[in-house]
Amino acid sequence: MALTPTPEHKFTFGLWTVGNRGRDPFGEFVRPPLDPVTAVHRLAELGAWGVNFHDNDLVPIDASPADRDRIVRDFRRALDDTGMTCPMATTNLFTDPVFKDGAFTSHDGRVRAYALQKTMRAMDLGVELGAQTYVFWGGREGAEVDAAKDPVEAIKRFREAIDFLCEYAIDQRYALRFALEAKPNEPRGDLYFPTTASYLGLIPTLAHPEMVGVNPEVAHEQMAGLNFFHAVAQALEAGKLFHIDLNDQKPGRFDQDLRFASESIKPLFFLVKLLEESHYDGPRHFDAHAYRTEDQEGVWDFARGCMRTYLILKQKARQFCEHAGIQALLAEIRDGSGAGHAGPYSRARAEELKAQTFDRAVLAKRRLPYERLDQLVVELLLGI
Amino acid sequence: MALTPTPEHKFTFGLWTVGNRGRDPFGEFVRPPLDPVTAVHRLAELGAWGVNFHDNDLVPIDASPADRDRIVRDFRRALDDTGMTCPMATTNLFTDPVFKDGAFTSHDGRVRAYALQKTMRAMDLGVELGAQTYVFWGGREGAEVDAAKDPVEAIKRFREAIDFLCEYAIDQRYALRFALEAKPNEPRGDLYFPTTASYLGLIPTLAHPEMVGVNPEVAHEQMAGLNFFHAVAQALEAGKLFHIDLNDQKPGRFDQDLRFASESIKPLFFLVKLLEESHYDGPRHFDAHAYRTEDQEGVWDFARGCMRTYLILKQKARQFCEHAGIQALLAEIRDGSGAGHAGPYSRARAEELKAQTFDRAVLAKRRLPYERLDQLVVELLLGI
Amino acid sequence: MALTPTPEHKFTFGLWTVGNRGRDPFGEFVRPPLDPVTAVHRLAELGAWGVNFHDNDLVPIDASPADRDRIVRDFRRALDDTGMTCPMATTNLFTDPVFKDGAFTSHDGRVRAYALQKTMRAMDLGVELGAQTYVFWGGREGAEVDAAKDPVEAIKRFREAIDFLCEYAIDQRYALRFALEAKPNEPRGDLYFPTTASYLGLIPTLAHPEMVGVNPEVAHEQMAGLNFFHAVAQALEAGKLFHIDLNDQKPGRFDQDLRFASESIKPLFFLVKLLEESHYDGPRHFDAHAYRTEDQEGVWDFARGCMRTYLILKQKARQFCEHAGIQALLAEIRDGSGAGHAGPYSRARAEELKAQTFDRAVLAKRRLPYERLDQLVVELLLGI
Amino acid sequence: MALTPTPEHKFTFGLWTVGNRGRDPFGEFVRPPLDPVTAVHRLAELGAWGVNFHDNDLVPIDASPADRDRIVRDFRRALDDTGMTCPMATTNLFTDPVFKDGAFTSHDGRVRAYALQKTMRAMDLGVELGAQTYVFWGGREGAEVDAAKDPVEAIKRFREAIDFLCEYAIDQRYALRFALEAKPNEPRGDLYFPTTASYLGLIPTLAHPEMVGVNPEVAHEQMAGLNFFHAVAQALEAGKLFHIDLNDQKPGRFDQDLRFASESIKPLFFLVKLLEESHYDGPRHFDAHAYRTEDQEGVWDFARGCMRTYLILKQKARQFCEHAGIQALLAEIRDGSGAGHAGPYSRARAEELKAQTFDRAVLAKRRLPYERLDQLVVELLLGI
Repeated sequence: MALTPTPEHKFTFGLWTVGNRGRDPFGEFVRPPLDPVTAVHRLAELGAWGVNFHDNDLVPIDASPADRDRIVRDFRRALDDTGMTCPMATTNLFTDPVFKDGAFTSHDGRVRAYALQKTMRAMDLGVELGAQTYVFWGGREGAEVDAAKDPVEAIKRFREAIDFLCEYAIDQRYALRFALEAKPNEPRGDLYFPTTASYLGLIPTLAHPEMVGVNPEVAHEQMAGLNFFHAVAQALEAGKLFHIDLNDQKPGRFDQDLRFASESIKPLFFLVKLLEESHYDGPRHFDAHAYRTEDQEGVWDFARGCMRTYLILKQKARQFCEHAGIQALLAEIRDGSGAGHAGPYSRARAEELKAQTFDRAVLAKRRLPYERLDQLVVELLLGI
Repeated sequence: MALTPTPEHKFTFGLWTVGNRGRDPFGEFVRPPLDPVTAVHRLAELGAWGVNFHDNDLVPIDASPADRDRIVRDFRRALDDTGMTCPMATTNLFTDPVFKDGAFTSHDGRVRAYALQKTMRAMDLGVELGAQTYVFWGGREGAEVDAAKDPVEAIKRFREAIDFLCEYAIDQRYALRFALEAKPNEPRGDLYFPTTASYLGLIPTLAHPEMVGVNPEVAHEQMAGLNFFHAVAQALEAGKLFHIDLNDQKPGRFDQDLRFASESIKPLFFLVKLLEESHYDGPRHFDAHAYRTEDQEGVWDFARGCMRTYLILKQKARQFCEHAGIQALLAEIRDGSGAGHAGPYSRARAEELKAQTFDRAVLAKRRLPYERLDQLVVELLLGI
Repeated sequence: MALTPTPEHKFTFGLWTVGNRGRDPFGEFVRPPLDPVTAVHRLAELGAWGVNFHDNDLVPIDASPADRDRIVRDFRRALDDTGMTCPMATTNLFTDPVFKDGAFTSHDGRVRAYALQKTMRAMDLGVELGAQTYVFWGGREGAEVDAAKDPVEAIKRFREAIDFLCEYAIDQRYALRFALEAKPNEPRGDLYFPTTASYLGLIPTLAHPEMVGVNPEVAHEQMAGLNFFHAVAQALEAGKLFHIDLNDQKPGRFDQDLRFASESIKPLFFLVKLLEESHYDGPRHFDAHAYRTEDQEGVWDFARGCMRTYLILKQKARQFCEHAGIQALLAEIRDGSGAGHAGPYSRARAEELKAQTFDRAVLAKRRLPYERLDQLVVELLLGI
Repeated sequence: MALTPTPEHKFTFGLWTVGNRGRDPFGEFVRPPLDPVTAVHRLAELGAWGVNFHDNDLVPIDASPADRDRIVRDFRRALDDTGMTCPMATTNLFTDPVFKDGAFTSHDGRVRAYALQKTMRAMDLGVELGAQTYVFWGGREGAEVDAAKDPVEAIKRFREAIDFLCEYAIDQRYALRFALEAKPNEPRGDLYFPTTASYLGLIPTLAHPEMVGVNPEVAHEQMAGLNFFHAVAQALEAGKLFHIDLNDQKPGRFDQDLRFASESIKPLFFLVKLLEESHYDGPRHFDAHAYRTEDQEGVWDFARGCMRTYLILKQKARQFCEHAGIQALLAEIRDGSGAGHAGPYSRARAEELKAQTFDRAVLAKRRLPYERLDQLVVELLLGI
């Protein structure tokens, strides 16, 4: 029962995830289009809490105003009928050829202006449907040719756009928080702001830093071989974990967007444990898609699997806390954590510290039974 | 002549770089120890401006006070005799077994206290020898076993240490700036603060953010396959490029510390161009070492090569600015940068923008001759 | 003049390379379709020697027999009019959804049968147009789910297909050699036969090993961070370099297919040197495409750049051989290569060897001025 | 009980693994030397079957003949007392500075001769102690400077050495098989024969291919992001899996040699399943070491963990075969494997195949429930 997803678990999916049709650089679509209304109903049946979208996942880029209104009305009715929420929205600033060299960082001022317009309209749409978080992923903000673009200028342009859009949200009295999503590369050779931390560095330089946080994605950090658990910990510690994208990825390759925890079992156990034990109460958003070998029914297998594995890992996180062997080792490992604590600086404390005698050899001998601890964790994961 | 290094180029080397003896995980030392005094003299002859050190590069960890004084006196005399500077110093918080599980982030409060003591003493030594920048590389601040350490707590401990040491520097009236150096892994499975941007995210949360910047290292970003030029650009844009470690590295493997620009010719051309065109006036520090196949004389070939290639790339950066073909392409590419500029937010501007009509197809057709531009850069680099 | 491509340089391009329309996982086409006849004419003007194709680059998968004949006639006329050759052909076994789980390694015997049919027909077409090399790239031969496919069985199925097709070629008296092309991943999570060496291991187990060699591709080895120059050297040493795909790639990321040597200047210099100095006389085939930011004219800039950089590096390979400093260092490094040579085994030789006394310390001191040599190579490349 | 290691499981450890003292490029030894005799006794108590060694793990490189004899006698007595075996031996051709630029591929003929001598003597020692497999890992056979060494020549030199040593073994009537072990890099920038497949390509070109196989190592393939399970499958299919090195590794970084399956739970489950289901009856050799944070007792925790996790995964491999849900999905997936089978070539079969009509759309719709299957595997692993 603990493994049955319910709305209180706050699981969400993007329309583009269950709606992914399996096209890739070497192959054509393998699945038919998925109607957003159907997506809402099926996800609700599976126990999801909400559904998110890029503007053009819902409303095609060339839709007439009448079409837009009809689509939104139908979609809202599906939400109402199912009790599903729409907690997050975002803008597609990468599919159309107009964005071939970026949106907010394009050299072409008209493209930058259009990107702002498109985002304002998409924010309106998102808020209309209840979104409280607005995600920015700069899919084309990057370069293959570093001679062609000044990365310092690109940062300034990106900041200018975010500052403008923060003001817009404030002016419209939108209760929106922004979440910036990083990725190291793909589709561009190198993307600006390649890691979650790049945005943690940017945010304090914005006009409204309090409105802006991050949206880390498992696959995106793992593409660069980075420890996602550590990246999320830094975002949390900075009070900036506004949203999260859950999926999976083998390091050092193309963006795979695999079913959550289908590959990185141990790392993602620690992630789930961190999310559950911190006070993160935002959506658990799955930004992944089914293998291209699946048909449409397989997409729902995929969605079920994401939620189910999350709940299994959550259960294991509780077991970790109740596991006598693990807790005894942790107590041993943490023993003496407080000893010699430096505390706030004072001249006296500094002088005292400088005069102190340390026996390096004794300190170095301190037993740290990490092999035993890690083995217990592996066995907990393996259900032994 | 433009390729002859002189002190005005501000080239510096670490004692540990030319003093590297070629031990690695699979092999023993191949070169004899290098006396710091000899290092200073040889580097001065080659045209370097300064030399940097970890405390224990100069003074062995178990040196008696008398030994320490003699070593420092001899070293200072070598600096005076040669006119060499010592602009940067740092602490070795990784070699001794006492730091096997970290220094500032160790679970053991006594180890953390000892790390503070060691750093204060090393700061004293650095300042005594003229250092103005103090580098922190947390070589053991990380984990293999994520069950064993809480990364949120690790960040807090690290911050506490830096805050304490900032206060110490202020209290001692040291004109020191701190530069934090990131690395994704090695010697730990994963290091906390894996990228330069991780520190850019941390710094605004410190008690004295104005005193603290970053020390990006080519190899460390490239180990994770990240674009170093972009990372340095972000540090510069944030006003946080306090120091830089120049070397080279093939991505996705162990820390190689190769001769500067011996592998990444194009990426490091853009780096040199950026450093020279920005107002970065700090040291050009080489944190690299000779191949293990070299004997002691080969070490000086290595050092010569680092400086010479930097100067060649600097010369090419000037040629880039004077190259009619490149500049014409850049002018074409940047044409229209100002058009449609959003400017600061106002409700009127937002409304105007939202109402504007954009012809996506026309904007998408905009010619961006990046292949031609990049080819000209490659040919400039190849001397054609 | 040495930098002007002519047919004797044997430069070839795939129809799919200059015909690449810039679609990627996050964006739509940016360039119009390129007619094969136009491609032939433009490439001929630029100095290329030939053009290669997948069956469906030339003849759409659903073309009627009449359409096929018309297309082939027009294409052949373009070849005749320009003097261009068509030295290599291959099969598209990855775009159509029928191949979603592989072609020769599919679980479905009907898919495997269809893949054979499609390849036999494509071989007929290739031979009709003059192809002497037939390339196999198993774009979908791999897995995301290792539970679903037995990799041992996959190897057997692949071998069965190649053996069948060798027999077909022999039976048809086609003067074709097969060249197997490896890739570690993308579009599948993991591809079988991930490296060129995987095929070097397979070939001796085939029914007609003498007919089968490899087609190494720069990007594919570099995706896994492997040294492409070494991979090609092994293929050459084994007498198995039947074709080569030239492009470029940053390691550890999605398949970029960049303009030849636009990134990996030094590694690809050694490659060109090896190709020119060995007796490889096959095509220099560019399997790359223009940046997605380019319009159609930019595609020809891209094509020009590939050939021009190859010729520049070829010129530098000659300079390397004539460079007194480099040659003197090489002579020093190679001095003593013959000493102590083991020669063929004999009991006497073994006993003599076992009894010999070696002074390890003396041998270890041998000077190997690799820093100096590599610096000279870098300067040669930089045109100093 | 199924999780208690016993000799019949054929678990072996290298002396260098449990004897690893925790030195790394940035830190000194943290553990005291481990006497080989003690290692044998402790490993026997833990349930291991055997112990392996490099010549100098047992006998120091400068040991006198008398010392050698005493050490070997003591070691043999420990084997006899415990019933432990010594199934594999190998040569250390990398630690001593004499091998700084390679052993069998060194430019210096005297170094090559010394490497042969050292290997013959080490083979004698290994055979004396019962070894039946002799491993070759070319730790220094590689380059940082591709100008300095000809990789074609390096391959020829390596082949010459292996051929010589095969003859030596035959001449001595040693019942030894050779197992070649690949690694992509570290300690050299690039190693020749970077992957297991590189050796599968070499072996058929040797004078005695039947005597020579491979020794794949988990960490070494995973460093390059390659699928180890697939690599071992190819070795098995070729009849060349003569030995195996079990450990673990995060991709794209330095050689970690982690406790078996401590990171790559799912991939190494498939490996164990493959080893157990194939007819591989060689040692399950752990080539790993304890975290540097461990003391000596922690080393035995590490060794226990390696064996225990192997046995857990072996148990799960059996469960996989008995799992009704998994087996039903596999049956569905494999249905039709035989349909349309090509069989051996005949002209009639080719003509029939070419004339056949395939409905691509129907074949493409074939359901492949890989998400469901993979989810069941993940749940099996998680003990649900």
